[in-house]
Amino acid sequence: MIESEAKSLDIVGIEMPGALTFPRGFKASGVRAGLKQSGSDMALILSAVPAAVAGLFTTNVVKAAPVLLSKKRTAKGCGRAVIVNSGNANACTGEQGMRDAEATGAEVARFLGLSEEDVFIASTGIIGQQMPMDLVRTGVEKAIRALGPNGADAAKAIMTTDTFPKEMAVESLKIGGTEIRIGGIAKGAGMICPNVATMLSFITTDAAITPQMLQLCLRRSGEISYNCLTIDGDTSTNDTVIMLANGMAGNRLISEDGPELQLFQEALDVVTTGLAKQIASDGEGATKMIEISVAGANSYAECRQIAKTIANSPLVKTAMFGCDPNWGRILAAAGRSGIDFDPAQVELSLGEILLVKNGEPVQFSDEKAHEYLKERKISVDLKVGPTEHRSRVWTCDFSYDYVKINAEYHT
Amino acid sequence: MIESEAKSLDIVGIEMPGALTFPRGFKASGVRAGLKQSGSDMALILSAVPAAVAGLFTTNVVKAAPVLLSKKRTAKGCGRAVIVNSGNANACTGEQGMRDAEATGAEVARFLGLSEEDVFIASTGIIGQQMPMDLVRTGVEKAIRALGPNGADAAKAIMTTDTFPKEMAVESLKIGGTEIRIGGIAKGAGMICPNVATMLSFITTDAAITPQMLQLCLRRSGEISYNCLTIDGDTSTNDTVIMLANGMAGNRLISEDGPELQLFQEALDVVTTGLAKQIASDGEGATKMIEISVAGANSYAECRQIAKTIANSPLVKTAMFGCDPNWGRILAAAGRSGIDFDPAQVELSLGEILLVKNGEPVQFSDEKAHEYLKERKISVDLKVGPTEHRSRVWTCDFSYDYVKINAEYHT
Repeated sequence: MIESEAKSLDIVGIEMPGALTFPRGFKASGVRAGLKQSGSDMALILSAVPAAVAGLFTTNVVKAAPVLLSKKRTAKGCGRAVIVNSGNANACTGEQGMRDAEATGAEVARFLGLSEEDVFIASTGIIGQQMPMDLVRTGVEKAIRALGPNGADAAKAIMTTDTFPKEMAVESLKIGGTEIRIGGIAKGAGMICPNVATMLSFITTDAAITPQMLQLCLRRSGEISYNCLTIDGDTSTNDTVIMLANGMAGNRLISEDGPELQLFQEALDVVTTGLAKQIASDGEGATKMIEISVAGANSYAECRQIAKTIANSPLVKTAMFGCDPNWGRILAAAGRSGIDFDPAQVELSLGEILLVKNGEPVQFSDEKAHEYLKERKISVDLKVGPTEHRSRVWTCDFSYDYVKINAEYHT
Repeated sequence: MIESEAKSLDIVGIEMPGALTFPRGFKASGVRAGLKQSGSDMALILSAVPAAVAGLFTTNVVKAAPVLLSKKRTAKGCGRAVIVNSGNANACTGEQGMRDAEATGAEVARFLGLSEEDVFIASTGIIGQQMPMDLVRTGVEKAIRALGPNGADAAKAIMTTDTFPKEMAVESLKIGGTEIRIGGIAKGAGMICPNVATMLSFITTDAAITPQMLQLCLRRSGEISYNCLTIDGDTSTNDTVIMLANGMAGNRLISEDGPELQLFQEALDVVTTGLAKQIASDGEGATKMIEISVAGANSYAECRQIAKTIANSPLVKTAMFGCDPNWGRILAAAGRSGIDFDPAQVELSLGEILLVKNGEPVQFSDEKAHEYLKERKISVDLKVGPTEHRSRVWTCDFSYDYVKINAEYHT
């Protein structure tokens, strides 16, 4: 568990189209294989040279075949390519599902002349249906032919009910005098019915860094970004984050903890938290993004647990949809989080508006609070005690459209 | 943690109007004090003689004043009366709130000639507003004048957005040849905006039983009833269950574990689980009640944790609203529950329809499953392993009306 959040004072993230192929030595593509009803549904990412690799995978006990395969393959620390499809999750598909995931990687390896072990696979979509492998094979061929500086196409191809592609890059990073680039894409809590929401993210960098340090940075970064993100508390069978670092920037290899790793970490955090916020603001049916900041508990983990409980409360989320400054629901959610605190020390603000001090309501303008809650980005700040620990979590509100999207599709 | 659920083979629960005053020696009333916009909002329960008392209270760190007061008073094991109001939760109201809770109990004690310590207080409603004590005092007077065989009035007076009063009695219980009666009422996950849903339940019995045994039975019963109930995962600041046992049935005092206690326990379980199911079927915006049964994990607690995770999943609840047999969402929720199990052993049925066996989907009629999900009561049966442990949890679906009820009210 990381103890504090990135400061990122000088490193600026850019929502850059094509972020994924902004770092040197990466090609990508996004094509239509025909797995979804419409639109592109297959993405390929390729490093020109062997790259260090790191991965984060779902903690769900029920793991999809590509998750099991990529988890094993990324553990060896290096690789070349990632093949991703939307439209079919290849989850709960038994041994046939594992054979299909392997075959998909094998197709990529064969066409590109790579070792099968250097190809990673990720999927999102329908649970419990076997992959239509004819379409997959044709799609792989198309994706290979389309490889180029096409990060933006890849960002689109992994979308499901996302309403916009999620891309984020860092360019102003210098490590030991060398310019380092990082770019990432993500798909959010969109649904391919009948499926759970799946979070996928892929990140490239031209930094030279050992697999061990890359995994360390990615794990830390995941803790304060993807793991601080919740749409509805549901964890997918397919969540996957894979990062490739190919060293083509030519910096001195980062192989241990120190100022250079720290700088790299901060830049990576800018990319991952930027993508996490984009995902939160594009939650299913969301009308606003909500940043919940909790401070003053006994650890970072305690702060985050309180923040996540608030973020997952349907009562809080529906109040936010209704632009209702309903602080009682926020306090009640904090109180049931499992974390002990003294209610008499609680302080709560919505944006700049103080609602509760010393555990009791203060006078505030209902009208102003209501107006504030009509904005697209809302800050909830809760202090539960005197410590310096603090965690931020991102979520969205809960609207009629959430119910619509998730109830009206029938298998 | 109780290890198995009540069998209740011979003991039948009845949804009896006036259940609360069905046991001998209890009077009750329900009147309008003016705390809500309309309807009755104050209930009083009185035992003719000193009664053994037991209580269960919210685990929320943020506890309302009446919860703090009643928790302390029930701990001494005996008492006479319960005064309940809806319309104002008296939560987050500081020292004034505690003074008001005490004053409310003192009014009841003064009029009835009781010790203040023998009066218990419960509230549900708005958080963060001081009690309008003038209205409370007038209400207490009215409630005392209205005391009689009026359990049904009390059941109505504690309702908030409940659409029907919740009453349940057991009458066919004989312990050592003596007829014992138990009656209970509850209010469900209805909302007095701007508040969290609060669960209140009050139970009377004419059994003679020691406070220790009564508390033991109530705690066990709460575990398999109220604690197996979830509407949206939110725990109120005001949840309260209080039970009075006045001994007027004339049975030999139940003072230790044994067959008589066991029988009493089973009867109590019939009342509490009956009330819990009524609450689930009347969840805010609910179109159906869902019973989720999980078996085969390593303990009762593990089974319940899996069942509760499924019951709280917005994705599962919206699928149920949409009558969509979306088993992928059920498995994914089980998988993220924090309990380890082997996905390859999973078996899942909706009612009589088998959907998943050995972790893989089986052929089933989508149409039949869709038709089944249109019923008012749905059973979800999940087996995750070979053990005999099993837990049931009750919840409801997640509809447009849930969002409407919880978003459209503005403070």
